[in-house]
Amino acid sequence: MTQTLPHSLLQALVGDEEVGAFFSDEAELEALLRVESALAVAEAKAGLVSEEAAGRIAEACRVFQADWPRLALGLAQDGVIVPELVRQLRRAVGEPYAQSVHLGATSQDIIDTGLILRLKAVIEIFGHRLDALIHALHGLKDRDGSISLMAHTRMQQALPFTAADKIDTWLQPLERHREALEALSQRLLVVQLGGPIGTRKELKGHGDAVADRMAEMLGLGFAPSWHSQRDRIGEFAAFLSLLTGTLGKLGQDIVLMAQIELAEVRLAGGGGSSAMPHKSNPVRAEILVALARFNAGLLGTLHQALIHENERSGAAWTLEWMVLPQMTIASAAALHKAQGLIGDIRFSRSKVSARSRG
Amino acid sequence: MTQTLPHSLLQALVGDEEVGAFFSDEAELEALLRVESALAVAEAKAGLVSEEAAGRIAEACRVFQADWPRLALGLAQDGVIVPELVRQLRRAVGEPYAQSVHLGATSQDIIDTGLILRLKAVIEIFGHRLDALIHALHGLKDRDGSISLMAHTRMQQALPFTAADKIDTWLQPLERHREALEALSQRLLVVQLGGPIGTRKELKGHGDAVADRMAEMLGLGFAPSWHSQRDRIGEFAAFLSLLTGTLGKLGQDIVLMAQIELAEVRLAGGGGSSAMPHKSNPVRAEILVALARFNAGLLGTLHQALIHENERSGAAWTLEWMVLPQMTIASAAALHKAQGLIGDIRFSRSKVSARSRG
Amino acid sequence: MTQTLPHSLLQALVGDEEVGAFFSDEAELEALLRVESALAVAEAKAGLVSEEAAGRIAEACRVFQADWPRLALGLAQDGVIVPELVRQLRRAVGEPYAQSVHLGATSQDIIDTGLILRLKAVIEIFGHRLDALIHALHGLKDRDGSISLMAHTRMQQALPFTAADKIDTWLQPLERHREALEALSQRLLVVQLGGPIGTRKELKGHGDAVADRMAEMLGLGFAPSWHSQRDRIGEFAAFLSLLTGTLGKLGQDIVLMAQIELAEVRLAGGGGSSAMPHKSNPVRAEILVALARFNAGLLGTLHQALIHENERSGAAWTLEWMVLPQMTIASAAALHKAQGLIGDIRFSRSKVSARSRG
Amino acid sequence: MTQTLPHSLLQALVGDEEVGAFFSDEAELEALLRVESALAVAEAKAGLVSEEAAGRIAEACRVFQADWPRLALGLAQDGVIVPELVRQLRRAVGEPYAQSVHLGATSQDIIDTGLILRLKAVIEIFGHRLDALIHALHGLKDRDGSISLMAHTRMQQALPFTAADKIDTWLQPLERHREALEALSQRLLVVQLGGPIGTRKELKGHGDAVADRMAEMLGLGFAPSWHSQRDRIGEFAAFLSLLTGTLGKLGQDIVLMAQIELAEVRLAGGGGSSAMPHKSNPVRAEILVALARFNAGLLGTLHQALIHENERSGAAWTLEWMVLPQMTIASAAALHKAQGLIGDIRFSRSKVSARSRG
Repeated sequence: MTQTLPHSLLQALVGDEEVGAFFSDEAELEALLRVESALAVAEAKAGLVSEEAAGRIAEACRVFQADWPRLALGLAQDGVIVPELVRQLRRAVGEPYAQSVHLGATSQDIIDTGLILRLKAVIEIFGHRLDALIHALHGLKDRDGSISLMAHTRMQQALPFTAADKIDTWLQPLERHREALEALSQRLLVVQLGGPIGTRKELKGHGDAVADRMAEMLGLGFAPSWHSQRDRIGEFAAFLSLLTGTLGKLGQDIVLMAQIELAEVRLAGGGGSSAMPHKSNPVRAEILVALARFNAGLLGTLHQALIHENERSGAAWTLEWMVLPQMTIASAAALHKAQGLIGDIRFSRSKVSARSRG
Repeated sequence: MTQTLPHSLLQALVGDEEVGAFFSDEAELEALLRVESALAVAEAKAGLVSEEAAGRIAEACRVFQADWPRLALGLAQDGVIVPELVRQLRRAVGEPYAQSVHLGATSQDIIDTGLILRLKAVIEIFGHRLDALIHALHGLKDRDGSISLMAHTRMQQALPFTAADKIDTWLQPLERHREALEALSQRLLVVQLGGPIGTRKELKGHGDAVADRMAEMLGLGFAPSWHSQRDRIGEFAAFLSLLTGTLGKLGQDIVLMAQIELAEVRLAGGGGSSAMPHKSNPVRAEILVALARFNAGLLGTLHQALIHENERSGAAWTLEWMVLPQMTIASAAALHKAQGLIGDIRFSRSKVSARSRG
Repeated sequence: MTQTLPHSLLQALVGDEEVGAFFSDEAELEALLRVESALAVAEAKAGLVSEEAAGRIAEACRVFQADWPRLALGLAQDGVIVPELVRQLRRAVGEPYAQSVHLGATSQDIIDTGLILRLKAVIEIFGHRLDALIHALHGLKDRDGSISLMAHTRMQQALPFTAADKIDTWLQPLERHREALEALSQRLLVVQLGGPIGTRKELKGHGDAVADRMAEMLGLGFAPSWHSQRDRIGEFAAFLSLLTGTLGKLGQDIVLMAQIELAEVRLAGGGGSSAMPHKSNPVRAEILVALARFNAGLLGTLHQALIHENERSGAAWTLEWMVLPQMTIASAAALHKAQGLIGDIRFSRSKVSARSRG
Repeated sequence: MTQTLPHSLLQALVGDEEVGAFFSDEAELEALLRVESALAVAEAKAGLVSEEAAGRIAEACRVFQADWPRLALGLAQDGVIVPELVRQLRRAVGEPYAQSVHLGATSQDIIDTGLILRLKAVIEIFGHRLDALIHALHGLKDRDGSISLMAHTRMQQALPFTAADKIDTWLQPLERHREALEALSQRLLVVQLGGPIGTRKELKGHGDAVADRMAEMLGLGFAPSWHSQRDRIGEFAAFLSLLTGTLGKLGQDIVLMAQIELAEVRLAGGGGSSAMPHKSNPVRAEILVALARFNAGLLGTLHQALIHENERSGAAWTLEWMVLPQMTIASAAALHKAQGLIGDIRFSRSKVSARSRG
């Protein structure tokens, strides 16, 4: 793939290296191969393919060297990478086992399960980051919580309160998001296996057993085929936008408190200006706002893809591919930025609050 | 309110009388008065106001006659209806109890709790409608499930399957939505009480007790003040869009199957045309698609309001008011349309499927 | 129509009486009748109907008394109000002219032209309001332009400038919107006439002549039928969102300058609080922000309806009906709020700017 | 930049190599350097820097070798790449001319003008592609225009018409987009130059002259500084979404006509399936729908950035960076896909239409 890509440098600002890596071509391919391998092994258990075939396929998946330019061509032609991948994989497996590759499955089984596999890893990272952020906020509260601030409603001074009160408005939703992440993992992290039209008929009565075994091997839950039922994806996207929304509110609050005229928050390591060396810009806090607005908008776009017509919609599914990875990476970036930001802020006693309490 | 309103007739197409009623001015006012009344009674229990005051306030709320034009003026002036409502209510209560009205509370306590009260009733209706729809789909499956249809992927004929297979792709997400509705009710249906800046300080140490008592009286759960934490609202909106998304997919499928060239579904009671009397248009199915796209877009808009700056954001909160009622009503309309549609369709054996199965 | 309607009181905050009136049922009906009348008269000129028929139809349109409940039922049934309206109108016209009503036209001809007629009036109002707002901003600049303010970039103090500099950042885009409004009127304000499938064939070679005559009678431009070509609607919606975006920026700037800690703007007539009598909330400025975010989101939703499949899409067209009136009214409200806001603000010399300029 | 990037392979499906190249890091850097160079030369003409300095700067820009990792760090730190770029460029220029680099300018002058420069090239490409597509559609109309098709309204058969009638519904909006592209170029393709707070004061009375000269050198129009006035960007984005909306409608129509049950369009080169070798999927047509829904949603997101607070908003500007390049590339991809699709389709006489006309 020598194609020029947009946005690489911008990733330094709004991307996330660790989570972004799960959406690289290589990571996607690796996930697809894990799924094809697990499918073959599960089918061998069910007697649908021979143990030798499964062994050969698993081995071929382990050492597979993709012909990337052909994969790209295949994707452009077929709208999905799997037909060409299966061709290459069958060639790698060789006779007499080639036809045992991808047996009874359809592209969407492989792509969707491959996505879920990666989301599983991502969700684990999100869990860790949420824990760390919640921990950091508790730490901030311990350190600065008693400092007097001025509460503002409708962008006007209201009454004095404390940094602890302010921090609680960030902590409480984050704790809810942490719980929600666990709960939604149960629903989201399930295998996709349906065959060409989602009925598992091609697996000749062994469909559920194969799906169950695949799920177990891949560390996922079992579910009936959900090709055209995209509520799981839509629910995950909503979670992401709720999360970045909370972090965007945190960022917006810090931007406002960091105004020099208020000076209720001081930022270490603000951004510099090319024209005004005296400035210290609340860059990370602003980015949190941008990421929240980005994800909110993308959520509305992704939910358009819930209207997934018939047994598989090329249009709706492609729209998901264009949106969900971005939302996931933006959320990861937001968690990372928030962590750094919380580490860098210090609350300062509100001058007004001090005066009015005096 | 004699102001001209947009869209009344359109409500016949995309509105919902039963659920829409909860978003009328009258219903909102009634909810606000219930909250003010419960607040006073709960404060009496805590010794913050006298029993006489609470009794007088509860009685005044029961018989309150609003000066609507002044409420409208107050809303336009203050950005929220409560300051003027409290003025009117204090006048109705009279001395010496007038100052016991709204004691220690802020507008957002009353408005948000009033919204939650109404959402509680709406969610109950949604539960019933979801049950009925799921029931109707099971009935349809029982009656027509064995009929042969042609599955379509990427808008092309794929392989034959049955009406039961198709219906399952609608039923399964609806059953998940039914469960999700229960789970989210626990999180959403909670009291809002925080006082001017969300700290409950004005309730002199009795804040939690008052909130708890209010919640109990109103049939809601307890929660710390969540003025600027709008994840609950955002989660509910996401639920609505997931629901209408599923129904939009159902509608889109029926539109496609009802194409005369496929004739896999026949619709009783299609819509007529002013120019082509031979037509029978799948109006309700189309409306389901429109409602799904409407809600998906509005969800993206509502999540912009998660960035609720400081202790109360006039801009973000107003945006919620403009969006959430519409989404709720659209969802109710979708449930109602879907129920009618399911009652009116008959599957027909796919000609192609018949042929290809020989 | 006795149906309960959502949001009437909220219209006092975010609605617009003058422009909202064009989206009442009565205004829509009046527009539809004007179109049916013009159609008949134009068809008489072309010899398609008799002069007597046209005269009778025009007269019936003038005095028409709708059976509203049946119109609502018809809309719910047919997805569009016109079939039932034509039935009622034919009854009112009576024999032998009944069949001359709506001759060769389709619902979309009447609805779309009726919409455009109302948008013409709305655009005129927008033009006046834009002129007035631009005038008011020039006045503000004349009065307060020399006052020293502090410019802020990335939410931090940058360098001093003047109120005139600030006002220019609002004025310049408004002046561009004023020009754009003129230019887009030429494209938008055109007649819709196509007959059942947009070919004008039912008008037997007189289609263009009838459309031209109708356009002239209604004060609109001529265009080929554009039933499924919704770019005009999408362009108008984009204009609305650009306009409210500019006003939202103005509102956001004023909210920020009106922070007591900056006090660069003072507002007469701020909103009151139910809990904090000392506050003066920048309600109108916040509403401008809310309206801008609302319209931006709705624009994304409306553009989903550009995918208007085939010769007429029930789903896409209905989506337009749900979105465009709201956007139009929100824009009108924004213009009105902005005008009031500009009349109520006074710039104050920035304390910091004063200091730093010594 | 060795960071892993999302989506490279997906670019084969929904990306565009030619237009995507303008949004590569290298292309952005090249544009930024052209702007810094033009600024220096224009300032020399105005006597603000010496001819030697300008010559040295122009030369340094020509041969500049970026330290990419430091640029990425600078971007992450400062929120914008320019401060670090200017540091590197000043080092490359060396004394005594280093301080003549970027004189009186701000980051946004360079970034925005650099964007506009690239959009100029992109718009030229769009013009050529639109011309070619319009030409191809005229060719298709010449070849297949007389073929009888069945018009469909509300997804039901309506009346027979011809392929020419259908093609006209695609051609007419494309011709309007072609005109609109010209008109908007005049407004969009203008220089950005304002200095730190947009007043051009740092250019000591020569601001307009320098801007004018820069514009001329860069082939752009003159405009006052528009740092916080993002209507031009919002208008361009709206154009993109209107364009992809039209192409999405074209794609959706072809998807529907290519249903085997209708067979009004045959596609050469459809996509293959991993499970069903008999299928020929209308991949490009589906992608047009996906791109249209993607851009529509992103438009709503981008317009959130019209609320560009104060003299420069880090949050709103960053949001633009995340959205506009994607929209531009998606539009380019849509034009390219549409061209290929039009070359590959053949209309077939509608069986029903044949029958009903028989």
